[in-house]
Amino acid sequence: MARLVRRMPRKVGLPPGTLVPVGGEPSGEACITLIDFTEAGFEERRPDTVEEVFEYKGKPSVSWINIDSVQHIDIIKSIGEHFGLHPLVLEDIAHPGQRPKMEDFGDYIYMVLTMLRPDEHKESLIVEQVSLLLGSDYVISFQEMPGDVFEPIRERIRAAKGRVRQMGADYLAYALIDAIVDNYFTILEWFADNTDQIEEDLISAPTTEMLESIHMLKKEILAVKKSVWPLRELINGLTRGESSLIEQGTVIYLRDVYDHTIQVIDTVEALREMISGMRDTYLSSVSNRMNEVMKVLTIIATIFIPITFVAGIYGMNFAFMPELGLRWGYFGALGLMGAIGIAMVIYFRRKGWL
Amino acid sequence: MARLVRRMPRKVGLPPGTLVPVGGEPSGEACITLIDFTEAGFEERRPDTVEEVFEYKGKPSVSWINIDSVQHIDIIKSIGEHFGLHPLVLEDIAHPGQRPKMEDFGDYIYMVLTMLRPDEHKESLIVEQVSLLLGSDYVISFQEMPGDVFEPIRERIRAAKGRVRQMGADYLAYALIDAIVDNYFTILEWFADNTDQIEEDLISAPTTEMLESIHMLKKEILAVKKSVWPLRELINGLTRGESSLIEQGTVIYLRDVYDHTIQVIDTVEALREMISGMRDTYLSSVSNRMNEVMKVLTIIATIFIPITFVAGIYGMNFAFMPELGLRWGYFGALGLMGAIGIAMVIYFRRKGWL
Amino acid sequence: MARLVRRMPRKVGLPPGTLVPVGGEPSGEACITLIDFTEAGFEERRPDTVEEVFEYKGKPSVSWINIDSVQHIDIIKSIGEHFGLHPLVLEDIAHPGQRPKMEDFGDYIYMVLTMLRPDEHKESLIVEQVSLLLGSDYVISFQEMPGDVFEPIRERIRAAKGRVRQMGADYLAYALIDAIVDNYFTILEWFADNTDQIEEDLISAPTTEMLESIHMLKKEILAVKKSVWPLRELINGLTRGESSLIEQGTVIYLRDVYDHTIQVIDTVEALREMISGMRDTYLSSVSNRMNEVMKVLTIIATIFIPITFVAGIYGMNFAFMPELGLRWGYFGALGLMGAIGIAMVIYFRRKGWL
Amino acid sequence: MARLVRRMPRKVGLPPGTLVPVGGEPSGEACITLIDFTEAGFEERRPDTVEEVFEYKGKPSVSWINIDSVQHIDIIKSIGEHFGLHPLVLEDIAHPGQRPKMEDFGDYIYMVLTMLRPDEHKESLIVEQVSLLLGSDYVISFQEMPGDVFEPIRERIRAAKGRVRQMGADYLAYALIDAIVDNYFTILEWFADNTDQIEEDLISAPTTEMLESIHMLKKEILAVKKSVWPLRELINGLTRGESSLIEQGTVIYLRDVYDHTIQVIDTVEALREMISGMRDTYLSSVSNRMNEVMKVLTIIATIFIPITFVAGIYGMNFAFMPELGLRWGYFGALGLMGAIGIAMVIYFRRKGWL
Amino acid sequence: MARLVRRMPRKVGLPPGTLVPVGGEPSGEACITLIDFTEAGFEERRPDTVEEVFEYKGKPSVSWINIDSVQHIDIIKSIGEHFGLHPLVLEDIAHPGQRPKMEDFGDYIYMVLTMLRPDEHKESLIVEQVSLLLGSDYVISFQEMPGDVFEPIRERIRAAKGRVRQMGADYLAYALIDAIVDNYFTILEWFADNTDQIEEDLISAPTTEMLESIHMLKKEILAVKKSVWPLRELINGLTRGESSLIEQGTVIYLRDVYDHTIQVIDTVEALREMISGMRDTYLSSVSNRMNEVMKVLTIIATIFIPITFVAGIYGMNFAFMPELGLRWGYFGALGLMGAIGIAMVIYFRRKGWL
Repeated sequence: MARLVRRMPRKVGLPPGTLVPVGGEPSGEACITLIDFTEAGFEERRPDTVEEVFEYKGKPSVSWINIDSVQHIDIIKSIGEHFGLHPLVLEDIAHPGQRPKMEDFGDYIYMVLTMLRPDEHKESLIVEQVSLLLGSDYVISFQEMPGDVFEPIRERIRAAKGRVRQMGADYLAYALIDAIVDNYFTILEWFADNTDQIEEDLISAPTTEMLESIHMLKKEILAVKKSVWPLRELINGLTRGESSLIEQGTVIYLRDVYDHTIQVIDTVEALREMISGMRDTYLSSVSNRMNEVMKVLTIIATIFIPITFVAGIYGMNFAFMPELGLRWGYFGALGLMGAIGIAMVIYFRRKGWL
Repeated sequence: MARLVRRMPRKVGLPPGTLVPVGGEPSGEACITLIDFTEAGFEERRPDTVEEVFEYKGKPSVSWINIDSVQHIDIIKSIGEHFGLHPLVLEDIAHPGQRPKMEDFGDYIYMVLTMLRPDEHKESLIVEQVSLLLGSDYVISFQEMPGDVFEPIRERIRAAKGRVRQMGADYLAYALIDAIVDNYFTILEWFADNTDQIEEDLISAPTTEMLESIHMLKKEILAVKKSVWPLRELINGLTRGESSLIEQGTVIYLRDVYDHTIQVIDTVEALREMISGMRDTYLSSVSNRMNEVMKVLTIIATIFIPITFVAGIYGMNFAFMPELGLRWGYFGALGLMGAIGIAMVIYFRRKGWL
Repeated sequence: MARLVRRMPRKVGLPPGTLVPVGGEPSGEACITLIDFTEAGFEERRPDTVEEVFEYKGKPSVSWINIDSVQHIDIIKSIGEHFGLHPLVLEDIAHPGQRPKMEDFGDYIYMVLTMLRPDEHKESLIVEQVSLLLGSDYVISFQEMPGDVFEPIRERIRAAKGRVRQMGADYLAYALIDAIVDNYFTILEWFADNTDQIEEDLISAPTTEMLESIHMLKKEILAVKKSVWPLRELINGLTRGESSLIEQGTVIYLRDVYDHTIQVIDTVEALREMISGMRDTYLSSVSNRMNEVMKVLTIIATIFIPITFVAGIYGMNFAFMPELGLRWGYFGALGLMGAIGIAMVIYFRRKGWL
Repeated sequence: MARLVRRMPRKVGLPPGTLVPVGGEPSGEACITLIDFTEAGFEERRPDTVEEVFEYKGKPSVSWINIDSVQHIDIIKSIGEHFGLHPLVLEDIAHPGQRPKMEDFGDYIYMVLTMLRPDEHKESLIVEQVSLLLGSDYVISFQEMPGDVFEPIRERIRAAKGRVRQMGADYLAYALIDAIVDNYFTILEWFADNTDQIEEDLISAPTTEMLESIHMLKKEILAVKKSVWPLRELINGLTRGESSLIEQGTVIYLRDVYDHTIQVIDTVEALREMISGMRDTYLSSVSNRMNEVMKVLTIIATIFIPITFVAGIYGMNFAFMPELGLRWGYFGALGLMGAIGIAMVIYFRRKGWL
Repeated sequence: MARLVRRMPRKVGLPPGTLVPVGGEPSGEACITLIDFTEAGFEERRPDTVEEVFEYKGKPSVSWINIDSVQHIDIIKSIGEHFGLHPLVLEDIAHPGQRPKMEDFGDYIYMVLTMLRPDEHKESLIVEQVSLLLGSDYVISFQEMPGDVFEPIRERIRAAKGRVRQMGADYLAYALIDAIVDNYFTILEWFADNTDQIEEDLISAPTTEMLESIHMLKKEILAVKKSVWPLRELINGLTRGESSLIEQGTVIYLRDVYDHTIQVIDTVEALREMISGMRDTYLSSVSNRMNEVMKVLTIIATIFIPITFVAGIYGMNFAFMPELGLRWGYFGALGLMGAIGIAMVIYFRRKGWL
């Protein structure tokens, strides 16, 4: 489940810029992929060492370097040195859990985004930090783990679909951001479906598990909110046209992502409102059902109490009780009790209580 | 019912500007209508192909082209080419569910609005995206489906009522926006009537269906909110006087629509507050009625318990119980029980419990 | 009751500036009053036709024309023509329910305000739109119906009390706004008294009618809010000193009204908070009383159940039950039951349950 | 108790600047005190008439005139004439209940503040308006009634403690504001103590009176809020450095008061949040206790119902009931009932219900 | 527990700048530590008197003076004189409970921060004020009590780790702020763990103590909020680049802390939302359990009532009751009762009530 406070590596007190591998030493190989393209052609490689990609810097082509693990501190350091990155940027790359933001360092822009996806059981959200570095002719992306939402962009570069091959690194960065934001819509649909499903179940048959589901939905929508709200600022920062790295022609595309971000925010807010109303629905549903049960039980008791009283009367031991000696006394008493019972049922029916 | 998250066509990952028909291939003919007018006269046509309307561009008259379906990708593309529209504009036109917005492209302004209407059963709201393109001498409107709120404007053009024939394309665009905003008042009245009706019913006879109605009202007022809030920004953008397409004389009319939009927003907020209070009314009404039932039942039980006890006493088998041998013992006991019962009823009445 | 959505005349789709009499044709005579004054003297008239007042325009004196009905479209049109008003202004005058606002047309300022008053039964609020037109030497006020809060100002003009006779039309307009805002305090006191009264009643003896009263108070305070919030903007607009119609000496008075408006807003917000807390008071009060009733009933039942059990024991038909044969057995059993009953009452008392 | 809407004198409709004594004619003597000081010495007087203090105007010393009643209209008028005050200022001084504000009239600054203090029973808050007039060499303070928080400042002037004697009138005004704001901390502590006390009582033994106390606390914290929020603006206005009456050296002291004001606001907001949570604590506490009672009662009933049933069985009159003839049948039945009762008690205990 | 209103020393009315030892006379020695460093080396001392550290002022090295007690008024005064501090700064240092803020006095910057830590029982938060004075070549820190979060920085200075030895006093101040903000994350994790723990317990076994825990968490998160929100402003003030004491190279580090502060604020807000939802969880959990108990009890009663009625019938004393004489009558009656009981249990099971 998306945690509210992401446990930070025990780095409290270390000097800023210190790189500590998150979650201990890296477990596997860092997967490095390189896609280098011009309008005319493209090259795709999976180099073994990060140094192999450095030769592409300075070429007239656009290079997209993607690294699938932030635990390989050495790779991050090496890139940092080669591309002249600020130590704080390296620290932010290596320590996921940053708030989405954008920082303009003049010759490169550093961006943090969060990629969301449901886990394999489709039960909770995985929040993954994606760091983007946009230079004049390169984009470097760092992900926490393999698997992303960028595959269609790779396809578009390979097949030269759309404009991505004709435009610069800024458009590529835009395309990556756009893919992440588009993915939010999928996540929100998943949320809305979940919410609708639980809502329906709540009214028909509320269970305690649902309360926990609501609680989890609430926690997760809060996590989405934390990912999305700062995004607005981020994209706003890019469109403000202060950086020479972003060409005018790309700004209009960024404004389009901006609109989508606002839409995502609107939807997140609406979902939050719906979800926070669900607890009330649950409570009222549970209490309604409980009340129904109690009412039926009380009505049963109420019907039997008067007729038990009649039986009590004829159980008295008075010497002189004329009805007792009557031949039809017993059946009369039974009939009386039956009549009282039936009369009460009819009365309760008519009142709408039964 | 107005969905919170509008299911987008599976376009995630496609290059921006790709046009995918929403909901599959278009089912019928796209209905194109053209109204071309000057102060002196007007012409109304239903051309079969969109190319027929292109000849009107460049004429001194004002042309209003209305297209009643956004599934005909070819028509949108054709208009896009002919009028030199940005690919992102074409994408937004073709993919309804955009947030209301306005974008100034210099020689044309693109606007997205949402038109609301109750469905045929008057039970839920249909949200329809309307795209407006305002050029120097034309207005193009795209609707998701046939049927709109523009008929009175067509009438005014035909009958030369008001100023619409004397003024330019910007006034026509204003008139269309005004018609949409005016329509919101009708929608809000419908909401207010619904709310009042349910409110009354809630107090007299609450049912679970009402809870669902409240829930739906809440969802729909959220949808209205999402349509109306961005409108403020949109119209504000138009009145800011930055575009040469909007003449000074039209700005005062736009300010009037702006005032109406604020009024709509105020009312939406007030309605939201009323609706969110209705759930509480429901709960308290249900719980009141349930409590009443339980109270009556408990009172019945409470009256019978003491008199049943009296019957129990005289049902005891002690050898020496003086009352048992009395001639009037039985009737005395009955009288005692009756007296106790009546005393309790009087007491409960006096306490206001019965 | 103050409706949230004011039913507009069926004007949707009509060209802007069209005047439709609200609520059908005017029912009576429009009451026109004119007060024309200089520092030296004043004249008060009730002309039969609106044309009679036009001769006062251009005179060095200040004229205050008041019209007590907005259903007389012809009068509004006639004034519109004579004073050169914009058609949208005429439309706003004729169609009450506008949001308070101020519009500066250069040679005149148009203001919409709302005047509130309790109805004759002191049970609900009547919301009346007042339109003010401020020119260089005239003020025209339009009211929806006869009866207003301006009488003291008329008195001050007649008696030359205060500065109203020494100053210009802008001061007169200020005085009218001031009278309306002052009146809000009376309304708020009425609200506060009502709220206090209901609050007290709620705790002593809650009834369902009170819930409806609370609901109505809530609706009405929302209506007041809608009247007062925009007023802030309105007066702010007047004091900004952009119009030559407002002299510097009047601005300080307007700032005073501004302070009062803020005070009204503060009070409205505080009242809203109190009122929204009242529903909770009601619910907790009702539920407290109900719980008390149930507790007493349950205690009665609980006292009788054990002693009925004792009676049940001695009602058993075992052949060998030593107590049954005892001479004092019956009275012993009665005593036992009495003891049990008294012990339970004492126990419940001590626990504070009874 | 602090009223939400302060009943205004019936001045609605009077010309602005009219002075009406609040609460009728003044009841006692207005207490005028004058402290006139330079760095070298000071003079303290209690003049009988306000005219005696006028001679101090224009002297190089700083004069502090304090008037302890705003019902003496003649004094206010006299000061107004002598110091050249605007009629609206006089009106605001004479009519308490103004919103705290500051108005810069060039040669004097007019400030309204509110002084809070608990009444003699320490049960509710008294809200008193303090008007301050700051001129180049004088400060005039108007209070609604005798008794204030300024005594320590008088002490400091007399004893030449701190800088107050070395600095100008602006520093004196600062010292007065500071004393009022410092006093708010005392009030808030009183609030916090009250809140803590009630909070504790609520959990141990909730009573209806506490609900009223909470309600009153809520109303009073709203009153404090209304006093404190505008203060921020007021002090901000003083520090903006636009007035020549405030020297640069005093601004840093004013910023210190500003910080305290923010702290007061923070605390008020936190208290409001705590108080609005208290009603829920009350409700849950009451409902918990009630539920406990009902549970115990229901358990008692539930234990007796099965054993009463056993007694009922052996009270049946069948001719052939083998147990009835047994010698130990009666004691066996008693034992059975006892066993059932004990078993149920154990079961309920184990379930944690008892 | 973190108090909402910190009891201020009885200084109300004293002249500003008066130093009163908080909590009476200082109890122990004030612990003064000095770390003086250049890139080349460092010196660490624990001087007995504060005067010993003054000689380091003016040296080209950076000096960090830390004082572990604010009760030693004489030390604060002495530093104040030597470093030329404003009396109000000394007052704020000596009287903890200030709101975090930053004040630029030109040749030094004064900052107030709050350091949070759980007490030894890990049950509540201790809020400690830390005052920082940043001069051109010195940083002076005042703490309320021994023990802080600065140890790693001391380590870094000693071991020349990171850049702290290469940079100026502004970087040292940054490092201290960074350590405090980093510490907030630890606190928030502690909160989140507490919240999660209580949340789980709430659903499984709610107790009244948990309600108090929630209440305390709420109070403490409010205290954290009060510490963190103003921090944003504080750091913003430092990065604005208006002070010559902060070098450009340090601003980027401060922006990093700023980002962390925003993250802390986001998390605090999310935690507040979670915590305020917990009371509802508690209430619904308690009410659920209570309802379950009541339901089971009522079902038991409901099962016995009809069969007790059957026993009552055969306890009647009618002369002619055919079943009574039957040989198998008694067992038949027992069987009937058993059948009724079992039928009811089955019915309740099937309904899901049992």
